[in-house]
Amino acid sequence: MNVKSISVAVRLALALIAVQATAATPPPPPAATEPARRATTSAEVLAASTPADWRPLDLQNTLYMELPAGRVIIELDPEFAPHHTENILALTREGYYNGTAVVRSQDNYVVQWADPDGKRPIKNAHKNIAAEFERTARGLPFTPLLDPDTYAPEVGFTDGFPTARDPKFGRAWLVHCYGMVGAGRDNDVDSGGGTELYVVTGHAPRHLDRNVTLVGRVVQGMEILSVLPRGTGALGMYEKPEQRVPIKSVRVAADVPASQRTELEVLRTDTPTFTAYVETRRNRRDEWFKVPAGHVDVCNVPIVVRARH
Amino acid sequence: MNVKSISVAVRLALALIAVQATAATPPPPPAATEPARRATTSAEVLAASTPADWRPLDLQNTLYMELPAGRVIIELDPEFAPHHTENILALTREGYYNGTAVVRSQDNYVVQWADPDGKRPIKNAHKNIAAEFERTARGLPFTPLLDPDTYAPEVGFTDGFPTARDPKFGRAWLVHCYGMVGAGRDNDVDSGGGTELYVVTGHAPRHLDRNVTLVGRVVQGMEILSVLPRGTGALGMYEKPEQRVPIKSVRVAADVPASQRTELEVLRTDTPTFTAYVETRRNRRDEWFKVPAGHVDVCNVPIVVRARH
Repeated sequence: MNVKSISVAVRLALALIAVQATAATPPPPPAATEPARRATTSAEVLAASTPADWRPLDLQNTLYMELPAGRVIIELDPEFAPHHTENILALTREGYYNGTAVVRSQDNYVVQWADPDGKRPIKNAHKNIAAEFERTARGLPFTPLLDPDTYAPEVGFTDGFPTARDPKFGRAWLVHCYGMVGAGRDNDVDSGGGTELYVVTGHAPRHLDRNVTLVGRVVQGMEILSVLPRGTGALGMYEKPEQRVPIKSVRVAADVPASQRTELEVLRTDTPTFTAYVETRRNRRDEWFKVPAGHVDVCNVPIVVRARH
Repeated sequence: MNVKSISVAVRLALALIAVQATAATPPPPPAATEPARRATTSAEVLAASTPADWRPLDLQNTLYMELPAGRVIIELDPEFAPHHTENILALTREGYYNGTAVVRSQDNYVVQWADPDGKRPIKNAHKNIAAEFERTARGLPFTPLLDPDTYAPEVGFTDGFPTARDPKFGRAWLVHCYGMVGAGRDNDVDSGGGTELYVVTGHAPRHLDRNVTLVGRVVQGMEILSVLPRGTGALGMYEKPEQRVPIKSVRVAADVPASQRTELEVLRTDTPTFTAYVETRRNRRDEWFKVPAGHVDVCNVPIVVRARH
């Protein structure tokens, strides 16, 4: 065992300790199966996972957005954006989004949807609510990634979302990886609220971290949003009304009849199986790879979603 | 001036020294204009740039790829991939690519084009050539980025391309940012050559760095490639022939009549103006931003291309 592999072993051991120390959500992390521990590729790790390595989507915090090309599924994150989540659920339940549209597609950046005319009435929900850019790190599950990050002191994963932490100030926040969904705002930090939402469709714009409230992520249907023609107006806005993509409806998954639901489950990020999975992303052992990177960017660890088993 | 701003000033000074020490291509770097030095946004820096801050595309190493939706322009990089560049120019000039097609579009990853049937004859060019994954860093212009990188000891810019360096081993390589173009290969490292090319359309897959030969980048027309419907086969391959996107022709810009050329210029990456530009990406001063990131990922510094002035 050379110096490098000792270092990796120590770091993996520390990661396992960290996972065990911070995991706070039931059920407790299952042990990795022997095949999972021995696996060298992501596919092998996932094939060797057990049912306890997965959690179902929380139907109360999951949205189905119906576009002409199909269903986009968004999981909201009440741990990081409790008030935005509550407001977006309220907007959804009062039908605010039904008949709105995708109004913007900026290449290598974001797709955004909103009420194009900005005149839609709001009943019980709120137009604007206070920013939720970051929160206390105290009590938060956090599976650290052991690689240097350009933007944050620490990056990792919390309950299936990519996150960052600043231990010095005890703060934590969601990070802008591909597929993350945020609440657009004007210059005032408290001018968001969820009536305009965007999703990251390009290289992670991490400079947006802590500048805008992230509310969740797309767990299915990114390929519907990411291919929308780029708008030719400023910031990728569609210049003609007919270019907009109509949103037929947005519904809370729990409100949808069981027969119409899309049953999905997400790989838990607080388990030894997940740690083994991250290691397969850090050092690819597939025959094609010749120089394992030895590191991985937090946004290059796709948090796996699959049909519920 | 507080500790943080002193640190930034020192780093900027070092960056300027580094630029001056490594710039090797004529003409010599122009001084930044006073407006450029005082500029606080990217738009202001670019508006204050002078003609000497830009270089025209090298027509001998530029390809025009004509798709049904328009022209995609690729600048090859003979400094990092001299033999691949030579071979791709030879393939282009013997008409190899005319009538090939985009055969793959994998979400958040790459779009790839090739001869779908793999039976197209090659005349004077080569089917396979030796890998050019990295090269010596000696004598290479390099404008370092002063931020930590997850994957490489040093990242920066060389003649308008994002690059990385390992000072310990004296090696340098192109990095997989959005829009970078590479030569697909099979498991054998020397099985590439340019008959199959791919472009990055998602979050930078930096684990590919030094595992495959990058040959250049798309400088215009990314929005044509990035919106291609995702393939539903393994690795995003199109499963039906009719899903493929035909490539009408690929030509070397120098071979195209002047009247049909797209005259572009690229922001030089070895100038104080570029250093000022990078600083505006590192710390956004636009009114919208509340927490300047203080850092920037090498792939979050778009190397600006514009119509030739």
